[in-house]
Amino acid sequence: MGETGGAARVVLDAMGGDHGPAETVPGALAAHRAHGVPVLLVGRADEIDEELRRHGGVGELEVQHADDVIPMAERGSNAAFQSKSSLMVGCELARRGGAAFVSAGSTGAVVTCAVRALGRREGVLRPALAVALPAMSGFTVLVDAGGTADPSAEMVAQFAALGTEYARSVLGVADPSVGLLSIAAEPGKGNRLVRDAALLLPDMPVRFHGNVEGHDVLAGTVDVVVTDGFTGNVVLKSIEGCVRTTLGLVARAGTVDAGPLEAVARLYAADTHGGAALLGLTGTVVVAHGSSSAAAVARACVVARDLAAEGQ
Amino acid sequence: MGETGGAARVVLDAMGGDHGPAETVPGALAAHRAHGVPVLLVGRADEIDEELRRHGGVGELEVQHADDVIPMAERGSNAAFQSKSSLMVGCELARRGGAAFVSAGSTGAVVTCAVRALGRREGVLRPALAVALPAMSGFTVLVDAGGTADPSAEMVAQFAALGTEYARSVLGVADPSVGLLSIAAEPGKGNRLVRDAALLLPDMPVRFHGNVEGHDVLAGTVDVVVTDGFTGNVVLKSIEGCVRTTLGLVARAGTVDAGPLEAVARLYAADTHGGAALLGLTGTVVVAHGSSSAAAVARACVVARDLAAEGQ
Repeated sequence: MGETGGAARVVLDAMGGDHGPAETVPGALAAHRAHGVPVLLVGRADEIDEELRRHGGVGELEVQHADDVIPMAERGSNAAFQSKSSLMVGCELARRGGAAFVSAGSTGAVVTCAVRALGRREGVLRPALAVALPAMSGFTVLVDAGGTADPSAEMVAQFAALGTEYARSVLGVADPSVGLLSIAAEPGKGNRLVRDAALLLPDMPVRFHGNVEGHDVLAGTVDVVVTDGFTGNVVLKSIEGCVRTTLGLVARAGTVDAGPLEAVARLYAADTHGGAALLGLTGTVVVAHGSSSAAAVARACVVARDLAAEGQ
Repeated sequence: MGETGGAARVVLDAMGGDHGPAETVPGALAAHRAHGVPVLLVGRADEIDEELRRHGGVGELEVQHADDVIPMAERGSNAAFQSKSSLMVGCELARRGGAAFVSAGSTGAVVTCAVRALGRREGVLRPALAVALPAMSGFTVLVDAGGTADPSAEMVAQFAALGTEYARSVLGVADPSVGLLSIAAEPGKGNRLVRDAALLLPDMPVRFHGNVEGHDVLAGTVDVVVTDGFTGNVVLKSIEGCVRTTLGLVARAGTVDAGPLEAVARLYAADTHGGAALLGLTGTVVVAHGSSSAAAVARACVVARDLAAEGQ
């Protein structure tokens, strides 16, 4: 198993996502064919082989069998982490081979397995998910977008540092500014968690802008918006839904101009951004959207390879 | 003072909002002229009179002087609630006169003053802000949109009941469904608060749908989306910002069709929705957006009069 993992640059949980191998296998093949990413597929070998045959890819990618599948509804309880699940086997292979790991499985389950198998970087209390959202100009990093639902203020302050590193290395922002997501711009406003985190952020190795509000997330007010994983996940999905509704309402209001609507829809589609990076671990982990198509899986594999090259 | 308040159907904090009397006074005049709403203006009489003169409205609306102004940055601490502030004087007048109260002031300060002056309805633990958001079809009520930043699970369960009443009486939905905002649709997923609230909701007098996610807010999945006031406020403002960014990106992608973009922008503009209703008090309170224009203030006064007529 160690040797197998060592050969691949990206290990993919072939059983993850709403559609499993039907989308992950063609996605892996696309990442290999179009971008030269060597993907190791982990999961039920018979199901994977069937999809490889269907897409003319027998022998093209390595396959590692894993008996069990962690269901999408699983949030990360102990029973689910049998050592034989595609998630756990995949994370182990990634660790041994120094490869990046990609899954479209349940975020909670991916986080738990990744932490167990890869371990946290020294000093990191909890991992955080980072996504780069298209803003009016460039991108805004939203962190934590769902890694840790109930963090402490210390954890939120660390997320700011992790998000800063990500913005610097992946987006190339030299000195990223960080805003703390709250319900008013004035210091001292927010819930308990935000008020506590605001006291810690001035001492973190980040350029702290102060509080920002929901409307700042896509406005480009700051490079990094930091929040707890519950709020971040709700905001991320609210934005996804809001883009769809806004474009739908524009279309219904009678536009004859479909091209720009499609261009904006593509900007925010899972196929474009390729998933969220799980920061703070000793290894690269990308969590793709549960509803990922083959194109989204392919993009996630490419992003994972590039993140690994950046040391993220 | 009691007699003065009794004559007006809507009491307006003329000093509230980012622009104060410059927008509130013409807004009140517009509500009176276009919709017959008798507005009582509360605040610094000299500043109000100057704006009434500027807009040819001297003697048209009642004015009640109040010495002090609670700054927008004030979140609701004790020192700010001098009995002479326009907020406190206005709330008192509304209570005595059985009138609705409208302010574009700091949400936290409005909530604190309104609770003090009007009091909570029997059994209500904390008030909640409700907004009706345009969805793909009809409206979705988001509650709490910023009334109580750190509620208990019991409070969140009550917000669901308050939101249900609002959807029934204001939007005319006979049997509104309620979704609990979380990070996954499966029961048991979320942060601690959501997991606790989910256990209480089946026993509330609401039609509980289960968990919903961020993308459900504007999708019309449920009639009422219930959440804590921190998350709700962040989601509300994220949606406002996302609509602006989406429309801006469509325009930049080269649409030649400005009409539909303006129509959708109007749907989500403060001028259209007229503010959020503060539910759970013995009286009607509408909190308008801090950046309200005169048109938005006028709309808030009309909405407040109509809500009061519905007993909300």
